[in-house]
Amino acid sequence: MTSDHGQGALMDMMTRIQAALDHELTLACSPSAPPRLMAAMRHAVFPGGARIRPQLCLAVAGACGEDAPALTNAAAMAIELLHCASLVHDDMPCFDDADTRRGQPAVHKVYGEPLALLTGDALIVMAYQILARAGSLHPERLAGLIETVCIGTGAPDGIVAGQAWECENRVELGQYQRAKTGALFVASTCAGAQAAGADPQAWRPLGECLGEAYQVADDIRDVLMQADELGKPAGQDAQHGRPSAASKLGLVGAIDHFHGLMQAAIDSVPACQSRSAMRQLVLHESRRLIPQSTCDRIELQRTADHPAVRLAA
Amino acid sequence: MTSDHGQGALMDMMTRIQAALDHELTLACSPSAPPRLMAAMRHAVFPGGARIRPQLCLAVAGACGEDAPALTNAAAMAIELLHCASLVHDDMPCFDDADTRRGQPAVHKVYGEPLALLTGDALIVMAYQILARAGSLHPERLAGLIETVCIGTGAPDGIVAGQAWECENRVELGQYQRAKTGALFVASTCAGAQAAGADPQAWRPLGECLGEAYQVADDIRDVLMQADELGKPAGQDAQHGRPSAASKLGLVGAIDHFHGLMQAAIDSVPACQSRSAMRQLVLHESRRLIPQSTCDRIELQRTADHPAVRLAA
Repeated sequence: MTSDHGQGALMDMMTRIQAALDHELTLACSPSAPPRLMAAMRHAVFPGGARIRPQLCLAVAGACGEDAPALTNAAAMAIELLHCASLVHDDMPCFDDADTRRGQPAVHKVYGEPLALLTGDALIVMAYQILARAGSLHPERLAGLIETVCIGTGAPDGIVAGQAWECENRVELGQYQRAKTGALFVASTCAGAQAAGADPQAWRPLGECLGEAYQVADDIRDVLMQADELGKPAGQDAQHGRPSAASKLGLVGAIDHFHGLMQAAIDSVPACQSRSAMRQLVLHESRRLIPQSTCDRIELQRTADHPAVRLAA
Repeated sequence: MTSDHGQGALMDMMTRIQAALDHELTLACSPSAPPRLMAAMRHAVFPGGARIRPQLCLAVAGACGEDAPALTNAAAMAIELLHCASLVHDDMPCFDDADTRRGQPAVHKVYGEPLALLTGDALIVMAYQILARAGSLHPERLAGLIETVCIGTGAPDGIVAGQAWECENRVELGQYQRAKTGALFVASTCAGAQAAGADPQAWRPLGECLGEAYQVADDIRDVLMQADELGKPAGQDAQHGRPSAASKLGLVGAIDHFHGLMQAAIDSVPACQSRSAMRQLVLHESRRLIPQSTCDRIELQRTADHPAVRLAA
C-alpha cells in the first residue's frame, strides 16, 4: 500500500466519522429539545480534533473484516462523544479552568457553566443510546461492546478515574496515564474488533501503546508549545501540579519513550490484510503528534546536554 | 392484600435495592481505583432517599411475571444511579449551589467540586455498565432496556434536558417537568416491564402520572417546608426563578392537581395479579410525598381563601 493510498483511507474514515456524528446530532434536535443544550452539544463535538479514537475503531473493524458498518459507526461515535464529554467537563472552571479548546472558546465560555455540565452529561448518555440503537440488530455483540466502552470511560480504570487521580494525594504516573488516556484508546481498538464480531484481546496492545504514546506526546506538547499552536492553554500540567512524563523523564527521555511506544504499537498489529494500512495510520498519527520540527528542537537540546555525543559523531 | 402485606412487600423491595447497590459499589472498588472517587460515589448513593424509582421498576417487573431477577435489579440500579448522578451535578455551585442533600452534606461540600463533577460522570457510566453485564444473559432485551433508560436520562427529553430547560429564556411548565422528573419515572416503569420481557407501553401512563405528581409534590414541599424537614435547601424554585406548579396554580390548586394525578396513576395500572400491590405502592408514596398534616394546612388555607365553602359545609 502506498503512502497516498494510506492518506486516502484516512480521509475516507474522517469523512465517515464526521458525517455519522453530524447525522446523530441533527437527529437528536427534536422540536421538544432545549435549543441551547443542543447547540452546546454541537459546539462540543464540532469541528472536533483529530478524531484519532474513532479512526482507530474504524480501522480495527476494517482489519477484522467489518460486516456491520452501522454498528462500527456507532462504536466509533460513542467513543468520540465520550471523549468530547470528558473535554467539556475537564475545561470547566472547577477543573482545568481552560478558556479555549480546539482553537475555539470552551463550551462553558459560550454557554455558561450549568449548560457545560449538562452538555457533558448529555453526550455521555447519547453515546450509549447510539450504541443501543445500532446494537438492536446485533444483540449478541451489544453487551460486550457496551462493557468495553464503559471500562474505558468510568471507574475504576477509565478516563473518569484518570481525571479523579488528579484529586488524590498520591498517584503513580503509569496508572494515572493508563486510566486518563490509555483506557479509551484500548476501548477504541477493542470496540472496533467487537463491532466486527471479532475477539478484542488481540487488539488491546495496539490501544495500550497508542494511548500511552498519546499521553507522552501531550505532556511534551504541553511543555514545548504555545497556546495558539495547541488550541488550548499551555503549561497546564505544571500549573496544576499534575504528574507528567516530560517532568519525570525530561524532554529528551520523553521523546525517546514516545518513539519506542509508537514502534511497539506498529509491532503489535496482528497479522491481517490491513496490516500496512494500520501501520500507515500509526505513522501518520506519530508525525501529527510530534512534528519533525519538535524532534529537531529536542535533538539540539540532547546534543547541548551531552556535547560528547556531538564530538563523537 | 392487606396494608401490612403491602408494607412488607415495600420493605422487601427496599432491602433488595439497597443490597444490590451496595454489592455493585463494593465490586467497583478495585485496588486500582482512585479511593476518593470511590468514596464520593458511595456518598452520593448512600444512605439514599426513598428509592421510589427503583421500587417502581421492581414492582412493575413483578407485575409482569419477572423471570430474570438479576436483569430487573440491574435496571432498577441503573435508574437509581442516574438519579443520584443528576442530584450530585444539580447540587454543584454552578447549578443549584446546594450544601445539603438527603440530610447530609452534598458531595461537592465533602469531596470538592472536581470530584463531584467526576462522581456524577462515573455514576452515569456505571449505570450502563451494570445493565450491559446483566444484559449479556438476555441479549434480546438489552438494546430496548438501554434505549429506555437513555431516553429517560439524556437529550432531547430526559432529565438532563429537563435541567437544561432551566437555562432557556422560555419554557413551558409541562414540558419542563415531563423532562426533568417525568421521564425517569416513565423509564422506571417501562424498564421494569422490559426486564421481564414484557411490552413497556402499557406501563407508560403509570410512570407519566407518578412523575408529574412527584414534581408537583416537590414544588409544594419546596414552598411549604423548612430545610431541616426536606434534607436539602428550601425555596429553591423561587430563588432560581424556576417554573413551579405551586407558583402557577397556587398551593390549593397544586394539591388538588397532585391528588388527581395519584388517582390517575392508580387507575392506569393494567389488569394483573399484582394490581393491588401496585395500588398499595402508589398510595404509600402519595402519603409519603404529601403527609396528611400538609393537606390539613392547605385545607385551612382553602377555607380561609373561600369562606363561603366553610359556611356552606
